[in-house]
Amino acid sequence: MARQDRAIHTRRMILEAAAEMFDEFGYDATSIGGLIDRIQLTRGGLYFHFTSKEQLARAVLDEAVTMNGLAPQALKLQEWVDLALLLAYRLPREPLLSASIRLSVDVRARGLFGTRWPDWMRVGEELLVEAGNRGELLPHVEPAATARLLVGAWTGVQQVTETLPDRDLSEEISCLFELILPNIASAGVLAKLDTSPYRAERLLLEAGSPAIHSSRRE
Amino acid sequence: MARQDRAIHTRRMILEAAAEMFDEFGYDATSIGGLIDRIQLTRGGLYFHFTSKEQLARAVLDEAVTMNGLAPQALKLQEWVDLALLLAYRLPREPLLSASIRLSVDVRARGLFGTRWPDWMRVGEELLVEAGNRGELLPHVEPAATARLLVGAWTGVQQVTETLPDRDLSEEISCLFELILPNIASAGVLAKLDTSPYRAERLLLEAGSPAIHSSRRE
Repeated sequence: MARQDRAIHTRRMILEAAAEMFDEFGYDATSIGGLIDRIQLTRGGLYFHFTSKEQLARAVLDEAVTMNGLAPQALKLQEWVDLALLLAYRLPREPLLSASIRLSVDVRARGLFGTRWPDWMRVGEELLVEAGNRGELLPHVEPAATARLLVGAWTGVQQVTETLPDRDLSEEISCLFELILPNIASAGVLAKLDTSPYRAERLLLEAGSPAIHSSRRE
Repeated sequence: MARQDRAIHTRRMILEAAAEMFDEFGYDATSIGGLIDRIQLTRGGLYFHFTSKEQLARAVLDEAVTMNGLAPQALKLQEWVDLALLLAYRLPREPLLSASIRLSVDVRARGLFGTRWPDWMRVGEELLVEAGNRGELLPHVEPAATARLLVGAWTGVQQVTETLPDRDLSEEISCLFELILPNIASAGVLAKLDTSPYRAERLLLEAGSPAIHSSRRE
């Protein structure tokens, strides 16, 4: 492995280990010392990439807004659904995503770094505005308010679902869409939307995404 | 003030101060020493009521499932809506409620004490089953799944709303119901439901609830 590849690989390994610790223990209880124990890297090796816990948290949050697997669809509303289903599929399988939510609901970390919720709201709103322009929405739908509510609802369903061992996030988010879409999609569009909990896995395969490593939680 | 009244008063004061600290700083960063500084009570005075941070957290969570202001309604579905609107109104005004959510989304505290989400799901499911028996629900509605989704959606909307200074939780939860109820309530029932963000305040006044002290956040 060339030196530069090795550095990229090491940086990623550190970031994923830090994300796992933020996710398991929370921001306050995670320490650089504990991270070094976990990844068996020297302090110098770690500091070459990250010099503080704050920097690690920021790097984790920077990875949070990702569109992997999202592909253009005939219906813009389908893209909005796809984004939420993709995240629901990926979150239990990717420590970086899981940790970024943990940092957002953690009051201390949120105070230091903010959250990525406004970014998600903006992405959702843009998709819904475009869906509206194409006549895919019922006339009363307000894109900004609907995007905001979905970010909230998605986040809370994720929080609650991870405390329920026999529930699957993809299925819960699929149910959430079945509940809300009839009051969002115009009549002809609703029947064409795919809200299946298996859709995200298919999209990722079609996109040729790097294999998603198996879930920590399965 | 009689000795017993004074003890009840002191216990409540301690609990509210602890709740404020859990809410502001999170579970890990809250300490008995910090609490003593805040409330200016001796260690002995505190220990008469609570001997550990764990005991304080459990007492906060025990206060979390409250039905204040809920009154029997002609429609059971209205009671389900009322419960969510009442909590949305009270949470920004009552540190104990706010702290109980914070402890539920805090991964460390949740590991120690669990959450009250299963209790809320059960209460919601019971109301929805009864609503179904009375013909208030569309035929496809599954009470358990719907109650579970609302607990998740409510929790996340609260989390996200508190990061948005110009948004009000009562209005957001009111919007959430406007989004989901058309796919839950049977046609004749939907028009009769009151989802106004001002409903909770009215219910609390009618119930003659002790005056809600003014919001910390207003």
